[in-house]
Amino acid sequence: MSAMEIDLNADLGEGLGPWTMGDDQALLGLVTSANIACGFHAGDPAIMARTVAMARQRGVDIGAHVGFPDRQGFGRRVMQIETAELAAMVVYQLGALAGLARAAGGCMTHMSFHGALGNMAAADIAVAAPLLRAVADFDPRLIISSSSSRAIEQAAADCGLTVATSFLADRAYDDQGLLVPRKLPDSVIKDEARVLARVQQLLKTGTVTTYSGATLAMPVRSILVHGDTPGAVGLAHLIRDAIEAAGGRIVPISKQASLLPKG
Amino acid sequence: MSAMEIDLNADLGEGLGPWTMGDDQALLGLVTSANIACGFHAGDPAIMARTVAMARQRGVDIGAHVGFPDRQGFGRRVMQIETAELAAMVVYQLGALAGLARAAGGCMTHMSFHGALGNMAAADIAVAAPLLRAVADFDPRLIISSSSSRAIEQAAADCGLTVATSFLADRAYDDQGLLVPRKLPDSVIKDEARVLARVQQLLKTGTVTTYSGATLAMPVRSILVHGDTPGAVGLAHLIRDAIEAAGGRIVPISKQASLLPKG
Amino acid sequence: MSAMEIDLNADLGEGLGPWTMGDDQALLGLVTSANIACGFHAGDPAIMARTVAMARQRGVDIGAHVGFPDRQGFGRRVMQIETAELAAMVVYQLGALAGLARAAGGCMTHMSFHGALGNMAAADIAVAAPLLRAVADFDPRLIISSSSSRAIEQAAADCGLTVATSFLADRAYDDQGLLVPRKLPDSVIKDEARVLARVQQLLKTGTVTTYSGATLAMPVRSILVHGDTPGAVGLAHLIRDAIEAAGGRIVPISKQASLLPKG
Amino acid sequence: MSAMEIDLNADLGEGLGPWTMGDDQALLGLVTSANIACGFHAGDPAIMARTVAMARQRGVDIGAHVGFPDRQGFGRRVMQIETAELAAMVVYQLGALAGLARAAGGCMTHMSFHGALGNMAAADIAVAAPLLRAVADFDPRLIISSSSSRAIEQAAADCGLTVATSFLADRAYDDQGLLVPRKLPDSVIKDEARVLARVQQLLKTGTVTTYSGATLAMPVRSILVHGDTPGAVGLAHLIRDAIEAAGGRIVPISKQASLLPKG
Repeated sequence: MSAMEIDLNADLGEGLGPWTMGDDQALLGLVTSANIACGFHAGDPAIMARTVAMARQRGVDIGAHVGFPDRQGFGRRVMQIETAELAAMVVYQLGALAGLARAAGGCMTHMSFHGALGNMAAADIAVAAPLLRAVADFDPRLIISSSSSRAIEQAAADCGLTVATSFLADRAYDDQGLLVPRKLPDSVIKDEARVLARVQQLLKTGTVTTYSGATLAMPVRSILVHGDTPGAVGLAHLIRDAIEAAGGRIVPISKQASLLPKG
Repeated sequence: MSAMEIDLNADLGEGLGPWTMGDDQALLGLVTSANIACGFHAGDPAIMARTVAMARQRGVDIGAHVGFPDRQGFGRRVMQIETAELAAMVVYQLGALAGLARAAGGCMTHMSFHGALGNMAAADIAVAAPLLRAVADFDPRLIISSSSSRAIEQAAADCGLTVATSFLADRAYDDQGLLVPRKLPDSVIKDEARVLARVQQLLKTGTVTTYSGATLAMPVRSILVHGDTPGAVGLAHLIRDAIEAAGGRIVPISKQASLLPKG
Repeated sequence: MSAMEIDLNADLGEGLGPWTMGDDQALLGLVTSANIACGFHAGDPAIMARTVAMARQRGVDIGAHVGFPDRQGFGRRVMQIETAELAAMVVYQLGALAGLARAAGGCMTHMSFHGALGNMAAADIAVAAPLLRAVADFDPRLIISSSSSRAIEQAAADCGLTVATSFLADRAYDDQGLLVPRKLPDSVIKDEARVLARVQQLLKTGTVTTYSGATLAMPVRSILVHGDTPGAVGLAHLIRDAIEAAGGRIVPISKQASLLPKG
Repeated sequence: MSAMEIDLNADLGEGLGPWTMGDDQALLGLVTSANIACGFHAGDPAIMARTVAMARQRGVDIGAHVGFPDRQGFGRRVMQIETAELAAMVVYQLGALAGLARAAGGCMTHMSFHGALGNMAAADIAVAAPLLRAVADFDPRLIISSSSSRAIEQAAADCGLTVATSFLADRAYDDQGLLVPRKLPDSVIKDEARVLARVQQLLKTGTVTTYSGATLAMPVRSILVHGDTPGAVGLAHLIRDAIEAAGGRIVPISKQASLLPKG
């Protein structure tokens, strides 16, 4: 993590029609990248347009957070969809958000996978490869914001896409760097002090302690702040403070030095 | 209709999942522009991707056919949605199809409004203005493919957008050039010979005989072929023959001389 | 309002998947009738099953709150759907909730129309008549819970259905007893003291002061407590207190003396 | 198959809004039981109401064909939904169709599981048990129409529900009597003569030849006619002829002697 530039990102725009989730307004004052739901697992055109406008106003990077077409399950349930159709679903969502960003005078800089779709891509190159090929076909400059995954990193590299690894401070990791499934006990860390300690360890040593107790190197460019939990805003403040206390600077991925075009 | 260049367009990709509508394969061999449903009134990402690929293969212009979010009513039922939200829905659909076109190595050249949304925009500048502003904000080069409407023409002109008027040979027009609502008797002309006679009148005199019997000038650049009626493919053949018999050339809107950038 | 038996009802189960709306748990401790969303404007099978179970546990009457198929607009936007199809949509929703009630060992006692569908039925006998005919065909013993409307009362009477008029304490009424549309200023009364005063006037005099200042008799059997506004729970407590202070008893509609079968 | 009474059933009402699937009108003249889609994988309230009315007119048994909430995938894709939520989805669909049947003056006599949901229940008692418990809680008199499955038979018996096994003449069976997945080669038998031969073998010997070549006893009360394939109507005619040639009588399940209440 040379120069200690780090991005703070959050999943935003996860309401639907009259329903809200999380305090987007507050989080947008704290993060540097927004991963905006695209109407499949959450979000709708009006919410997307509003979230894009708020992000632009605050200079927050705009990205697409793409998921399964399953609002009732919030994109967290596995659906057995063929990869060609999944790829079309991914591009559909990317295009929709990119369109709303462009119409608002902005620009979409990154994308990330949500929920079960993200887990499937992270765990299986046979899923990751066609999806990242579709992303590259859509826009080869998009940065892939992802929790650590060799499948996604490999698939992205094969298409010339840049991955910015994101750290999920409140989620347990296995020894391969994959997220431990939510249903396992203690896979979601709710104690604020422990979450913060994990951030501090990452900032100091570039490592995470895994579910099994091992120490794993995790070269991240971003830290994810969950917006849909009570206390999310307070925690985001504490993480910002921790980054600054560790001598870091909070910089959106798209503006981090090491990601600038080389040459 | 100087030079007698004329486009043939059809609404395509109007299936959903396992359901099909019309013979897209056959129509794509006959038309020069495809208005592709974007998942709101019909279509889904997989169908959109397939339709885009087929259109590209045949050199057919790719456009977005945007509608109300109402599959059960096929976008033909009025929904009272505020124009700001409608504008976001329009951009969402434009972006989605443009994304799939781009990922397929193609380019979206035009857009059109479907069903009740189209009727509302055609009849009311208060609807047309914010929607065309949204289209222009998304991409000012998009050509608006529309049945004749002063509201849409005015709103497009105000945003610097180009309108290519399309002739619906099987629909009755009122004296303002608006489509007569489907529920009125004889508003949809099913007799092939009458449809063909209307095309021939248009090609020869540039006019249409209205529902009331008046003669109305209608300077069109395109003729719409309906795909969801039995006999659609045979009729498309006859219309092609009529155009060629009248000395016309069938040319996609994006390649018609008068729409090239001036300068 | 003989005997001063009065029901307290609330619209409940208006979440969707991961999204919640209002504090159903708290409201179910205060009301005697639950109008449960049926998956069209809000709600889903899992939420409906949970809400039914909670209502049963507390002895709260179970009813279906049926609406337009428009989650994004929360059923508050007019949709131009033919009455035969609307009737099928109403029965579909009634059947779904009745099924979940039956599977839970309970029984559905009433139904109400939500949002724009409710406004359309209340204002127009041509809408109310086929919908109430469909309700009667489904189950002639269902009580119709409705804000005051001559159209609904007439249509119900024509089918032998019983109407229990419900008072919306926080909504302005016009001189015909119809709700003033939400978009008009001061149509939704947010000041708690004013809402309470309206309840007290109703309890004492059986009247409501209309938007124009007129005094209108309103023979109600129930008072609606809105669940989706902040302060809803506190307000429900105050309304309960007001009823008891006025010598009334809070009794579910299905158990009110005057609705028992005569003879 | 005492007395050689046999039912012919078909999955019907599998259109959606403007889209149709199969020739329901023709099939309803040939079958004795209709399994009607309930709006989750296919169907909508208007189509359900129309299909119910047509079935009643012809004295065809009305049943609910319940599936996953996935129209795009036509309910054929596995979704990882918890069984409690699945049970609520099943009851929701049963209630909706039962409601429409009741409003039409009819009565729902049976139910069946569609697609991936059916395969999961047939293969796993842990899925079948809670779903059949939910069916029994909804209505213990409903007959379960199912392809052969020990899981479903066991789960039904545990709840006191009656199963009527249905033979899918055009689908290959494994040695446990489960359907061979559609993606395996030759799992769907398209050759009419072979389909017919399988029906004749069943009628004569009460057995089916499995995918591996084994002979498996299959005591069925019904034969399924697929409606969504070309030639379905012609095949249904041939199957009817084969039953009659074998001395059988075509009788709806609800009227077959052995299923009448004992005692």
